[in-house]
Amino acid sequence: MSIVVVGSIAFDTIETPEGRAAEVLGGSATYFALAASYFAPVELVAVVGEDFPDHERSFLAGRGVDLAGVEVRGGRTFRWAGRYHEDMNVRDTVELQLNVFGEFQPVLPAAYRDAQYIFLANIHPGLQGDVLDQLTQPRLIACDTMNHWIEGAWSDLGRLLARVQLLVINDEEARMLSRERNIVRAARRILEMGPESVIIKRGEYGAFYVGPDTVFTVPAYPLEAVVDPTGAGDTFGGGLMGYLAASGDLSPAGVHKGIVYGTVLASYTVEAFGIDRLRRLGREEIDDRYRKFVKMTRF
Amino acid sequence: MSIVVVGSIAFDTIETPEGRAAEVLGGSATYFALAASYFAPVELVAVVGEDFPDHERSFLAGRGVDLAGVEVRGGRTFRWAGRYHEDMNVRDTVELQLNVFGEFQPVLPAAYRDAQYIFLANIHPGLQGDVLDQLTQPRLIACDTMNHWIEGAWSDLGRLLARVQLLVINDEEARMLSRERNIVRAARRILEMGPESVIIKRGEYGAFYVGPDTVFTVPAYPLEAVVDPTGAGDTFGGGLMGYLAASGDLSPAGVHKGIVYGTVLASYTVEAFGIDRLRRLGREEIDDRYRKFVKMTRF
Repeated sequence: MSIVVVGSIAFDTIETPEGRAAEVLGGSATYFALAASYFAPVELVAVVGEDFPDHERSFLAGRGVDLAGVEVRGGRTFRWAGRYHEDMNVRDTVELQLNVFGEFQPVLPAAYRDAQYIFLANIHPGLQGDVLDQLTQPRLIACDTMNHWIEGAWSDLGRLLARVQLLVINDEEARMLSRERNIVRAARRILEMGPESVIIKRGEYGAFYVGPDTVFTVPAYPLEAVVDPTGAGDTFGGGLMGYLAASGDLSPAGVHKGIVYGTVLASYTVEAFGIDRLRRLGREEIDDRYRKFVKMTRF
Repeated sequence: MSIVVVGSIAFDTIETPEGRAAEVLGGSATYFALAASYFAPVELVAVVGEDFPDHERSFLAGRGVDLAGVEVRGGRTFRWAGRYHEDMNVRDTVELQLNVFGEFQPVLPAAYRDAQYIFLANIHPGLQGDVLDQLTQPRLIACDTMNHWIEGAWSDLGRLLARVQLLVINDEEARMLSRERNIVRAARRILEMGPESVIIKRGEYGAFYVGPDTVFTVPAYPLEAVVDPTGAGDTFGGGLMGYLAASGDLSPAGVHKGIVYGTVLASYTVEAFGIDRLRRLGREEIDDRYRKFVKMTRF
């Protein structure tokens, strides 16, 4: 079963204590699509400029990512530059050039509209809502958001949250959205806003899920070296949604397992700059780390 | 199988965003002993002043804590006062009166010397070493330490670490001791210093264990309300060691299970000020939360 993802494609310039990468392929939809592609076909809705290179297009297509929904507009592709602190949980945005992304109006190709699995990566909640209007038979709609929209597009976000099943956000955003410092109370408060379930991503500390019937808490995969945290959250979303779309299992057990696949995928992403690790990641490596994670968490 | 614990008994004055408690029974050995007492008899080695009240003595004895090793010295019992920030991971020590604890020279009653399970709570590493000299047949020696000794008693601590099987410390201490920011590398570096295994306590983010053959990572028990984190780490140690002493199972599976019992006990401690929750905690509550934790972490 294919997955539609709507989000950004960007070129990122990233500095971390481990080094620097300039103008590398990134963006929420890119990380998500690559991670999900290990499990299911992905239909990508995004916008790029005329500068978007053919070899990246071929790379994505080779991974089973359909690009019919990627609009090419006159102008340059979205650019983001960021710098991580010694404590890589903290980063500063050094530069943001929206370029063609500033005019993004997501339009789903006709062939995408009957998709059942949809991930609305972090874009304006109004645009996320426009995507939902184009769907004919969604089964699971998941979305992400960010502090910028929580502060600046509160009412659009509120309307969106009433229409999605699953919100996937990080802990800082969860606290801001819920106005609760405690993560359990934050999750409960968010569920009152509309979604059936919420996953709070906690970076190196794992993830916390509250659904209609279950609570699930899971640590991150322990790593000796984190090189670049960029895209970890979207990779997590891709692994999760990929597993759910492939299995069709939306039971609590299925969602918990999907969260672990998201955890495993994200653990690979942060081992190298940008999508470098995902470019050369094999499916057998995912299963291998999944098995190791089972061993490291069983009691 | 009984457990010997050596550490502090104190009266604490605690301020958190949730309120205040003045002159309440605390200290590392107290939290440890109470938590361990749900699983096994505890032999307590500590010092108190002449002000230590009979009703607290009776309370501890009623929990199966043997007080023959608690020396009464002329003077006042150890006092500590601390204030937690809005982010309760951070606290300031407001006042510290060592009182009789400043002259503590742990002497094990003859009946304690053949103990097999020993927990050296946070005291000067030289004194922790003196305790080891008094043991005739230890099977599992675990110890804690703190930044104060890492900075000020490095060589004593180094000698101690070569003599213990298990070090149980928090993440900040692990980073300081290992000079490694990454928690996995910190654990590996610590094992090079002597212990066979290490548990790094991460507060609301759970615990991380590296042993001779296994790595184990576990989240904290999710709580909607944390009232006072004081003593959570020592409670964790008590639950862990209590389970190990009662089961005698020092296999990886046994240690992992012990870590979960430690996690469960600590989750109760932080729900109220000082030892208030432990005063009224029933064994069936421990098993109930253990079962809930299994459900919240299985996939």
